[in-house]
Amino acid sequence: MAEKPHVLIPSPFYKPAMDRLDEIVVTHHLYSAADPDKVVDEVGDKCIAFATFMKCEPELMDRAPNAKLIANFGVGYDAINIEEATKRGIKVTNTPDVLNDCVADLALGLLIAARRHIVDADRFVRAGEWPVKKLYGFVNRVHHSKVGIVGLGRIGEEIAARCAGFKMDISYHNRSMKPDVSYRYYPDLVEMARDVDIMVVITPGGAATKNLVNEEVMEALGPEGLLVNVARGSVVDMDALIACLKDGRLGGAALDVYPNEPHVPEELFEIRRNLVLTPHIASASQDTRMAMGMLVYENIKARIEGRELLTPVN
Amino acid sequence: MAEKPHVLIPSPFYKPAMDRLDEIVVTHHLYSAADPDKVVDEVGDKCIAFATFMKCEPELMDRAPNAKLIANFGVGYDAINIEEATKRGIKVTNTPDVLNDCVADLALGLLIAARRHIVDADRFVRAGEWPVKKLYGFVNRVHHSKVGIVGLGRIGEEIAARCAGFKMDISYHNRSMKPDVSYRYYPDLVEMARDVDIMVVITPGGAATKNLVNEEVMEALGPEGLLVNVARGSVVDMDALIACLKDGRLGGAALDVYPNEPHVPEELFEIRRNLVLTPHIASASQDTRMAMGMLVYENIKARIEGRELLTPVN
Repeated sequence: MAEKPHVLIPSPFYKPAMDRLDEIVVTHHLYSAADPDKVVDEVGDKCIAFATFMKCEPELMDRAPNAKLIANFGVGYDAINIEEATKRGIKVTNTPDVLNDCVADLALGLLIAARRHIVDADRFVRAGEWPVKKLYGFVNRVHHSKVGIVGLGRIGEEIAARCAGFKMDISYHNRSMKPDVSYRYYPDLVEMARDVDIMVVITPGGAATKNLVNEEVMEALGPEGLLVNVARGSVVDMDALIACLKDGRLGGAALDVYPNEPHVPEELFEIRRNLVLTPHIASASQDTRMAMGMLVYENIKARIEGRELLTPVN
Repeated sequence: MAEKPHVLIPSPFYKPAMDRLDEIVVTHHLYSAADPDKVVDEVGDKCIAFATFMKCEPELMDRAPNAKLIANFGVGYDAINIEEATKRGIKVTNTPDVLNDCVADLALGLLIAARRHIVDADRFVRAGEWPVKKLYGFVNRVHHSKVGIVGLGRIGEEIAARCAGFKMDISYHNRSMKPDVSYRYYPDLVEMARDVDIMVVITPGGAATKNLVNEEVMEALGPEGLLVNVARGSVVDMDALIACLKDGRLGGAALDVYPNEPHVPEELFEIRRNLVLTPHIASASQDTRMAMGMLVYENIKARIEGRELLTPVN
């Protein structure tokens, strides 16, 4: 039997899926290597692909000149320099669709948790405040509220379908109108923010959407408005968000993503009643992470066997 | 103009709704009176109704012999002694339907928050653990899971409709099969618990359902199972729940109700990762509490005007 091909892993992903890769390739785990440079020097030439999560620097691409595939774990590939990859004849794949349901589930979980104050109410109970204060207080409803989805792609449509189950009035903002959906379309994001109660952000990251949700959008969403971000931290202006939450121009927020993960601005920690913070777990169910990992696996396998890639992005 | 009729309020409910009652009656707020006994002695005879939240002792009924209506704020009337009321010719009303959506919203919020560990993940972020531990960990999915609803009444059907939006496989347990629904029916609760991933309890309280969800049911739900209770604390055996959560026989729970509210067993506070606790807030949105209060108002108004009660339960 011929020697297995070699694959570099610059940044780790779901371990049971990385383990599966060992069936078909020899993996080199740079993130945990004592001397990653030495590993690249030794095996760079014989590697045929990178398997990675949000990390593959152009300098590393140069040091593995026969690796013509970056199999990215995740649907968002804004952290991969596509232009530099393409320039080097490197194909990039991502893991679309298999995570749609899971991300939409968390989006709704964050929406309800924030709107109905589940996280803060849990603190209230555990702190023993219920017998003392008698009542937690009253909040805004979820059902029959107006929701605006920023980025009605495949995940956005799953979010919308779930919102429909809560009898919500659904709108969306995309760069252009989708011909096949009946939800209300807003070409202008501020206008949508003014009209809705809740905004869910699930647009791709990258330069085109950087700080798309800015101070003006938050003010339009307003003191009773809720902002949910399950897209990328870069899409929401963090300084504006902190300011608007602190002085009440924005009613509340629920965030799964941040501009400088895993670092979260400490100022957010002080905002408790109307803010929910999760550590980028939208796709973090076992089933979904395995499905994402198997798509990395299948793309690498397709490359080895000379077949067409399953989910190329360039 | 004739003097307004008088109404006793033994236990408070949503204040803006109690304030509205003053339009049509003179209210006597026993829960906040310096000497409630004196108030009852003075005005008991001329009161035509009780407006209350989960409290109206038979002894009080006797001391207001002309009060022939107990307008209960809430759909559950297990805390009112219906037999004693009926014996005295007192009609009891509740507030059904207007809270169905809100309770179903919270049920789904608790379900997702518990399944996807939103509350515990929020603690993880706020404690600054993300940069240290790198990953929160992986959990079970919500979508495509199997859910069993205990008590498929009007609220249960709203919960089921929302679960459908998450592509869940829906079953239910009632005392008898409902002819008009297509969900799978289980006459045996343990059997349903064995087959589902998630159980949502929304059956009426009272003697007939006391400790219906017992140790055997929890063990059948199992180490990966989730129990959500938005019914009454009495329906779930609390000692068994604490034991099963502590030793892992039950995977997780999310509770909005407890046997001895507002007191919550302190042993629950130590269980963090897989337990969500809220302080009986399922119907606690402003809109819904006002709608419930207006149903109390309308029942009392109907009684004053000699019309049929809107929502009698006896």
